[in-house]
Amino acid sequence: MENRILLTHGSGGKLAHELVEKSFVKALANPLLAKLDDSAVFDLSGKLAFTTDSHVVSPIFYPGGDIGKLAVCGTVNDLAMSGAKPLYLSLAFIIEEGLLQDELDKIVNSIQKATKEAEVEIVTGDTKVVNRGSADKLFINTAGVGIIPQGVNISGSNARPGDKVILSGTIGEHGIAVLSQRQGLSFSTQLESDLAPLGSLVADMLAVSHNIHCLRDPTRGGLATILNELAEQSKVSIRINEEKIPVREEVLAACEMLGLDPLYIANEGKLVAIVPALDATKVLKAMRGNHYGKSAAVIGEVRAENPGRVIMKTSLGTSRIIDMLVGDPLPRIC
Amino acid sequence: MENRILLTHGSGGKLAHELVEKSFVKALANPLLAKLDDSAVFDLSGKLAFTTDSHVVSPIFYPGGDIGKLAVCGTVNDLAMSGAKPLYLSLAFIIEEGLLQDELDKIVNSIQKATKEAEVEIVTGDTKVVNRGSADKLFINTAGVGIIPQGVNISGSNARPGDKVILSGTIGEHGIAVLSQRQGLSFSTQLESDLAPLGSLVADMLAVSHNIHCLRDPTRGGLATILNELAEQSKVSIRINEEKIPVREEVLAACEMLGLDPLYIANEGKLVAIVPALDATKVLKAMRGNHYGKSAAVIGEVRAENPGRVIMKTSLGTSRIIDMLVGDPLPRIC
Repeated sequence: MENRILLTHGSGGKLAHELVEKSFVKALANPLLAKLDDSAVFDLSGKLAFTTDSHVVSPIFYPGGDIGKLAVCGTVNDLAMSGAKPLYLSLAFIIEEGLLQDELDKIVNSIQKATKEAEVEIVTGDTKVVNRGSADKLFINTAGVGIIPQGVNISGSNARPGDKVILSGTIGEHGIAVLSQRQGLSFSTQLESDLAPLGSLVADMLAVSHNIHCLRDPTRGGLATILNELAEQSKVSIRINEEKIPVREEVLAACEMLGLDPLYIANEGKLVAIVPALDATKVLKAMRGNHYGKSAAVIGEVRAENPGRVIMKTSLGTSRIIDMLVGDPLPRIC
Repeated sequence: MENRILLTHGSGGKLAHELVEKSFVKALANPLLAKLDDSAVFDLSGKLAFTTDSHVVSPIFYPGGDIGKLAVCGTVNDLAMSGAKPLYLSLAFIIEEGLLQDELDKIVNSIQKATKEAEVEIVTGDTKVVNRGSADKLFINTAGVGIIPQGVNISGSNARPGDKVILSGTIGEHGIAVLSQRQGLSFSTQLESDLAPLGSLVADMLAVSHNIHCLRDPTRGGLATILNELAEQSKVSIRINEEKIPVREEVLAACEMLGLDPLYIANEGKLVAIVPALDATKVLKAMRGNHYGKSAAVIGEVRAENPGRVIMKTSLGTSRIIDMLVGDPLPRIC
């Protein structure tokens, strides 16, 4: 008989303790987690970053990733986007009664691998189980704590006219990969999510410049939405050049078929950096030297006029205003 | 027409930004949250506590509380149980499409009040919306960061033979209050959850003694389960005296009617402290001086023999072994 998660696994009682010890603490082993106190306790001093993300992606497995790796990378990347070195994560499961133990084990294994690559530790956690029909298989929240190196001051409100806008690579893979799995679409080439932890990429960038003004990862709402956020927060306009934005053929083809715009499709392994023009070349070089920044490119610049606007020069040579995402073509993508 | 939360509110796009700004940032106003960057950034140095809890209580409103106040108190209390002064919380919503905006506003209002009482700030957040039928109204995850005063070293593994076991008040109210609301039971007196933030109670205790060995809040699995956890972690036995454990008449009556044991019913505003015998009197006095510790009592002591066991002297004078919760009489109580 297949083992399945029962309501009792969320009771705080005996089965719950067994699940935590056998399935979680063993796989994610580290001394802080193993203490099993109500909080993890550690020494840390300086400018800290703290963030949270819940993950409700459907389906929970998809080409290039799963909800476990996503939960680690999502929070690691949010920490990295503040310039922080990600250190400690919390991990909270909401499980629908009936989830296969095998599926949960696969997810935990994938979490373990992702924490290893990202060089972070899961130090505290929580497990809730809800009755069948009250959730959709599995939701995962991760929160995270990281430390920001001295002299680094990154915020969405720091973009200045004249700054260059750098994108770390091709856009749209995550959203299209999840969508293709969900809807059983098949493309000529198997398209995979770009899901990746970006801590090392940010560290490589900070190693050559502490003057990076903004970092943001274009997840939900895609590149268009986060450029709008940055333009609004910094009270500047952002001009981008369509021809400079790298998009893979398979993503373009899928978007065309589905009537979607890659500018609004979620990514999970990309970032946008806004840096002073003087530092752009060395930051770009550092990015291209990292596995997750190989296709990095300057895609535009920051201007003073029309604050809050994002304007794209199209490949036809015309200009068009790029708005934030309105509506939601792809729910539950992360 | 009634306003309801739509899938689009979780898209990361325009409606999502409006929801965050109008419903969350405004109500929970503080400078860290208002920055709207991917992480909150603050200076902090020392021994930190970090914890997480997801809340899936059903129904989301019940006598004496709601899922919002619970989400704040749950995490505040987990931090306090490590001896930490709770400081910063994250707040992550998973909303089922169709939730009434009014209900969400009520919850956010209740979160705001609870953070004010607990003297903590919500500094970072996340909102996901899932389609109808993929969640049950609203789930909330909070994670939290606090700072542990120098010289304080509290852990479930620190209980020593001879220590006294102190309980901060009556048990069973939270579980019975939620259950009565869920099942439409009515008791002669309206029973309310004991839901409360315990940071000030712990601070009052630490003000008279830095020698507190263990603190734990008897939530899921109740008093019986957490005493078992402490006995196991510390490799000691715990003897308790049934007559010393305060239980309200209404809880006893409800438990009798429903065939439940108050020892296994969840509390959300109580704690167990294990302290050296020498410090017990002053810690007890400090607890009774705090609103949330008025009915505090010494309920037992720690012994060396039979490590891992919890043994109760019953009101009939016999002894019985108190095991951890097996099964789950009350799912989704927190």
